[in-house]
Amino acid sequence: MNGNAEIVLEAIFQRRSVRNFTGGCVDPSVLVTLMKAAMAAPSARNRQPWAFIAITERNTMNTLANGLPYTKMLYKAGGAVIVCGDSTVDLQQGATDLWYQDAAAASQNILLAAHALGLGAVWSALYPYEDRSGLVSRILGLPSFITPFSIIPVGYPTGEDLPKDKFRSDRIHWEKW
Amino acid sequence: MNGNAEIVLEAIFQRRSVRNFTGGCVDPSVLVTLMKAAMAAPSARNRQPWAFIAITERNTMNTLANGLPYTKMLYKAGGAVIVCGDSTVDLQQGATDLWYQDAAAASQNILLAAHALGLGAVWSALYPYEDRSGLVSRILGLPSFITPFSIIPVGYPTGEDLPKDKFRSDRIHWEKW
Repeated sequence: MNGNAEIVLEAIFQRRSVRNFTGGCVDPSVLVTLMKAAMAAPSARNRQPWAFIAITERNTMNTLANGLPYTKMLYKAGGAVIVCGDSTVDLQQGATDLWYQDAAAASQNILLAAHALGLGAVWSALYPYEDRSGLVSRILGLPSFITPFSIIPVGYPTGEDLPKDKFRSDRIHWEKW
Repeated sequence: MNGNAEIVLEAIFQRRSVRNFTGGCVDPSVLVTLMKAAMAAPSARNRQPWAFIAITERNTMNTLANGLPYTKMLYKAGGAVIVCGDSTVDLQQGATDLWYQDAAAASQNILLAAHALGLGAVWSALYPYEDRSGLVSRILGLPSFITPFSIIPVGYPTGEDLPKDKFRSDRIHWEKW
């Protein structure tokens, strides 16, 4: 295994969900890098059926935090990315229902890229909860063809959130069940 | 940005779906590393509702390739990992329907880890296609509480598959739609 492989694997293993942020702002250029990472994810038939809303405004983050039951960490986040599905992309190129798998891969890339940059992030589900996605759609003015999938608060970690070793050999089966 | 951040981001940007393999075998220990990466993914409420089948036997890969319409690259792959959902994990800890998002994050980690190790991999969807998941369940003897989600052929790339630049600035919206 070469040194670069070890660095990438270590990032995958050390990444943790960060819910405790210092309150420092995240530069918009960093959010662009995270969305670039998201768009490097694979998608079914390479349709790329996604759209992203980047949030840096304190008021918007507070309004979202007020309304969303499990995303209170937005109060101290320095920014956020909302990963959405775009059903017009889907329809243009042959509708299937895999957009949410593509959005999940994009979300995971955001988490890893944030970790690599020394930031913390946490994936908070919006889809398939209609109350949560409806609230986000109203606050951000999303058109009806855009479905919010996840909201990812990003910020500078306080250091309270530690990586977990989740490896379980009993989850692995060889050749068949 | 420090050097390690650049290496991780470069892995995310350079990873591509690899469908052309040399035919060389992948060591089982490498498949374990990929599954370890998968299990480092986040999951809703940290339930880890997943299970993995690692395949190294040529006969099994050929049988799966024969039956699956879009996974013919298994004929030349050196191994494969099947990411599954385990509904007993879900039920034990409060059923929700987010297991497929967790399985997608785990699948993406496998793709990135394979790329980091100099291997190629491609995510082929099984869920929610009942014909594909039923076929895989029969061939591998999966119990009814295990749902195959994705099959990821892994192998040594011939070099034919090149990375794509999928960044599109028009997919990014700032603060609101």
